[in-house]
Amino acid sequence: MADIKLTDKYISDHLNESLDELSKLCAIPSVAAQNRGLDECAALVSVMLERRGFKAEIMPSGGAPVVYAERKGKVDKTLLFYNHYDVQPPEPLELWETPPFEANRRNGMMFARGVSDDKGHFVSRLFALDALLAQDPELPCNIKFVVEGEEEIGSVHVPAFVEKHAKKLAADACIWEFGYVDHRDIPMQVLGMRGICYVQLDLECLTQDVHSGLGGSIFPNAAWRLVWALSTLKGPDERIRIPHHYDNVLPPSQRDREMASKLPYEGDEYRQRYGVKAFLRGTDGHPDLHLQETLEPTCTICGLTSGYQGAGSKTVLPAKASAKVDFRLVPNQTPEEVLKNLRAHLDAEGFQDVQITYLGGEAPGRTDPDDPFVNLVVNTAKDVYGVPQERVPMSGGSGPNHAFLHFLKLLVAVAGLGYPGNQVHAPNENIREDLYVKATQHVTRIVNEFAKS
Amino acid sequence: MADIKLTDKYISDHLNESLDELSKLCAIPSVAAQNRGLDECAALVSVMLERRGFKAEIMPSGGAPVVYAERKGKVDKTLLFYNHYDVQPPEPLELWETPPFEANRRNGMMFARGVSDDKGHFVSRLFALDALLAQDPELPCNIKFVVEGEEEIGSVHVPAFVEKHAKKLAADACIWEFGYVDHRDIPMQVLGMRGICYVQLDLECLTQDVHSGLGGSIFPNAAWRLVWALSTLKGPDERIRIPHHYDNVLPPSQRDREMASKLPYEGDEYRQRYGVKAFLRGTDGHPDLHLQETLEPTCTICGLTSGYQGAGSKTVLPAKASAKVDFRLVPNQTPEEVLKNLRAHLDAEGFQDVQITYLGGEAPGRTDPDDPFVNLVVNTAKDVYGVPQERVPMSGGSGPNHAFLHFLKLLVAVAGLGYPGNQVHAPNENIREDLYVKATQHVTRIVNEFAKS
Repeated sequence: MADIKLTDKYISDHLNESLDELSKLCAIPSVAAQNRGLDECAALVSVMLERRGFKAEIMPSGGAPVVYAERKGKVDKTLLFYNHYDVQPPEPLELWETPPFEANRRNGMMFARGVSDDKGHFVSRLFALDALLAQDPELPCNIKFVVEGEEEIGSVHVPAFVEKHAKKLAADACIWEFGYVDHRDIPMQVLGMRGICYVQLDLECLTQDVHSGLGGSIFPNAAWRLVWALSTLKGPDERIRIPHHYDNVLPPSQRDREMASKLPYEGDEYRQRYGVKAFLRGTDGHPDLHLQETLEPTCTICGLTSGYQGAGSKTVLPAKASAKVDFRLVPNQTPEEVLKNLRAHLDAEGFQDVQITYLGGEAPGRTDPDDPFVNLVVNTAKDVYGVPQERVPMSGGSGPNHAFLHFLKLLVAVAGLGYPGNQVHAPNENIREDLYVKATQHVTRIVNEFAKS
Repeated sequence: MADIKLTDKYISDHLNESLDELSKLCAIPSVAAQNRGLDECAALVSVMLERRGFKAEIMPSGGAPVVYAERKGKVDKTLLFYNHYDVQPPEPLELWETPPFEANRRNGMMFARGVSDDKGHFVSRLFALDALLAQDPELPCNIKFVVEGEEEIGSVHVPAFVEKHAKKLAADACIWEFGYVDHRDIPMQVLGMRGICYVQLDLECLTQDVHSGLGGSIFPNAAWRLVWALSTLKGPDERIRIPHHYDNVLPPSQRDREMASKLPYEGDEYRQRYGVKAFLRGTDGHPDLHLQETLEPTCTICGLTSGYQGAGSKTVLPAKASAKVDFRLVPNQTPEEVLKNLRAHLDAEGFQDVQITYLGGEAPGRTDPDDPFVNLVVNTAKDVYGVPQERVPMSGGSGPNHAFLHFLKLLVAVAGLGYPGNQVHAPNENIREDLYVKATQHVTRIVNEFAKS
């Protein structure tokens, strides 16, 4: 058993070194959506693990490589960390105050694309192990890492990878890629993740753009057809109109409402931070807003593009149009059924000409909120944050946790350094250094307690 | 009276010089929508006119300057040429075979942005005057030029300019900026132009983009609101749904149908050139397709933009979305009424949050198809093209002809070098050199006959 006072001192003494290591990792533009920097980043992740005495492998997945690493410990119990080394695209570049791939520390924060999601989490976990290893050359228990490179594009190859390597990845529990405090700085325990089905819809109605004075009355317009096709998917009532979309949706349980009720109301925070004037469907109040936020299916337009988008006017009838659409799924929806229903729906509505490209998907996944490992992670937080984690029934976001739950029969809990202002997926992504320290301290305690549990 | 055989010889002997002059004009990226190169281009246009003995002035219009020029002739009758020196944006640049602002001659054609629309027309008219002046130092009649710089963005300031300077611009007849042969190489006489009302629709529902996993179920999405707002403007039946939009629309007259019936059927040409599979509303056949093409109001989405548009996926809920929308107007619609009805309609449909920016507009305008000046232009074509021009009741495109018809009480006829393949408003805009010669020859004949008429 490590002396937690000494690990805390180590963390405090070596913070700059750890953030320097994080800066180097953030310097690699490992943007999965743009297929750049991935091999280079995987190589660095592998080296960082080997530096801590891990046996690391860069394993093919069918897409971006997965870095797998393991190291034995004193006790023969295994804790698996799931992280990812890929990041979101940095665009729009003009909104960054400092360049996205040059980490910049200011005002007790560090800014870079991926510094929070998810490179900061990965490096803080290594930092926690450094603190433990500084006291004892042996780890308290076996530790494994799965660090993948396609999380931001839906972890396309991860489920098959996990299934294929289930024996190698076997563990007793899993700490998920993230964790966060809410706007009151209270740490959260997230007990599930929505699934996702991300598609691109493309239309091409002509072989070239045409002067709008010529074609406007007689030629089909890809932008119009896209608008009409999209408007059949969801109306202003926010109800998804694809037949069978809600067939397998489980409504929130009594335990979900109970957990949600203990969480704070976030509406004011959202209004202030994002300038929301009214929430969708007029929902507000507690816990209704939270349950709608995390336990309902969504259909989100993430992007639209067609024709002329520059300054002023251009009188053109565009030959092509496309949209990116993201469906978030709740138990027991699957990306496969969503995709199938979407195709059937567009066909039935007369949009056979809309081409659907599946850009990735994951099934939703949940963890038993009252499992002993969840209790361990929840309770060890108290020593760091002053309060235990609060249980969140489900995250609005997605990840491949379903594969870990399903193929590895693992319990998945979260612990990490996120906070509401860290701008993940947006310009000026950042971490708070105080929370980086706390997340690291929390991991030393989790490993310690897990080894003796 | 000039000897037309000699002017034809002059044109044939000096073609390269004229095309060189055109190249220099095309080298100036005078893109009105992007507000670049306009003053520089106006200055060159003025110099080109002065070189021919015109008294030229660069006149303020409230927007891009108008180059006005006049020169007296033997007979005290005045012919006005209307042209424009601005061009469409060159984007998408990657589709150009040679750089858009470096004119390139190949295969009997010349390629450049604006080489057809409208710089080629302007230079060919100067070339025609050169041919006449080579024989006689005096012009056959008075000639005026109005060369504006905002045609491609709706000639915003031209109507007020024409009204204000009506006395100065006074003339007996007007040759419009363009003219063309159809796909059979038969020259056309266009007797009117549709109007236009070009708007940008903007939505901003949040102060920043948000992770779609967070906001998807509870935050308003600008892209969705744009789709829904647009889908209220026009449905797949192609009927514009804005109340009162059709109130003042005049249906095609018997004379319109009669003129249209003499034109060739263009459906096969369109299918082949643009890959059209079926025309809107299932219309086909002659003259129905032509009448729908040119004598009906349109509502065209020219561009859509929102959120992530790069490769792959980005799970973002976009804060902003916008569309460019172009309404073509027929007699007796006006851009003002369209704008007013659009605002009222969006408000009534619950889209008060859609901001409308008016990017330009023009009323539709028509010329009497049986006027003597029209007959003169139609019949002088025969000597050049072997056949007289065919009368087209209305052009699908737009221009500020209404101002010339209305404030100057002018007859407006067309003569020019266009052809169906010249890719105006698209990459690889070009002219055919043989048609450049013919258009120039036609103008020498028009000026000659007009002087003695």
